Amino acid sequence: MRTRKRICVDMDEVMADAITEHLLRYNRDYAANLTKEDLQGKRFWQVVPEPHHEILDAYLREEDFFAVLEVMPDSQRVLATLQQHYDIFIATAAMEVPTSFNAKFQWLKQHFPFIPYTHIVFCGDKSILRADYLIDDNPRQLAAFHGTGILYHAPHNVDVTGYARVHNWQEIEALFLGKL
Amino acid sequence: MRTRKRICVDMDEVMADAITEHLLRYNRDYAANLTKEDLQGKRFWQVVPEPHHEILDAYLREEDFFAVLEVMPDSQRVLATLQQHYDIFIATAAMEVPTSFNAKFQWLKQHFPFIPYTHIVFCGDKSILRADYLIDDNPRQLAAFHGTGILYHAPHNVDVTGYARVHNWQEIEALFLGKL
Repeated sequence: MRTRKRICVDMDEVMADAITEHLLRYNRDYAANLTKEDLQGKRFWQVVPEPHHEILDAYLREEDFFAVLEVMPDSQRVLATLQQHYDIFIATAAMEVPTSFNAKFQWLKQHFPFIPYTHIVFCGDKSILRADYLIDDNPRQLAAFHGTGILYHAPHNVDVTGYARVHNWQEIEALFLGKL
Repeated sequence: MRTRKRICVDMDEVMADAITEHLLRYNRDYAANLTKEDLQGKRFWQVVPEPHHEILDAYLREEDFFAVLEVMPDSQRVLATLQQHYDIFIATAAMEVPTSFNAKFQWLKQHFPFIPYTHIVFCGDKSILRADYLIDDNPRQLAAFHGTGILYHAPHNVDVTGYARVHNWQEIEALFLGKL
């Protein structure tokens, strides 16, 4: 039946640089100077005053938030190459911000047009995925997943162990194509 | 790890009566009298004149289409009961009509509030699902699925064989709970 191995790839913080945009909006609106370094080992809400927690969620619901996200360096090239050897699915937990479904779908269509829409999955619990590998920055999703989890480095997960860790798409390329 | 069996359930024509609404809109706009009987063994587009094919797709993109769909009889009660013995995930191929993501999500929230949002999956290719059972009216999705497929009866699939066929939610209840 299925001969090629299947890789699922998370979107936010793996393909799309959401944290940069999130910092940008917060720093702009509150004249703050937070950087990725301030987020080491933490989630964003842990480094802002409690009254600002709500605004962090609100940014995600802004109509243009997902549309303007930058593509992670090398992700387009490496995914296009990986697709020659693996079945690639994008798996994103859009359910946490339901209004983001269409924006995320359009973003993928624009920046990763070579990924067929049938290979895009919106799911809140990645234990549902039947795949060999999952590349994700969220250790909770990797723990739920039933294949081999690969941790994509992000400020909030610096203390997480137990998974192969990749820091960028060049390392993903080496991991999956260096072995062939 | 996982002890309870997992059932994935398709939405359109299994939980939501899309075909009745589709017929209603077409009959209204073209003074036609098509019924479910006219659709035996066929897809909707096969029973209307070629110039009308596009309007059938357009109905699905109308903002209120998915919002007004009737719930299939007994589906709420049976799913709530099944949930006591099985892990239930909803798996719907919303990618074919991307604008339907949010409408489908809201419809599920309204009519099946007991299903957590983490157990809703939007996917165009159901081979990605890791589950024991899939209840679906689409034989193409059942063929792709890697567990036991259960065919939910619909006019277009009357000629399909090779799967246990259920005609309504009472039969689903008997199939899954009669055995316990």
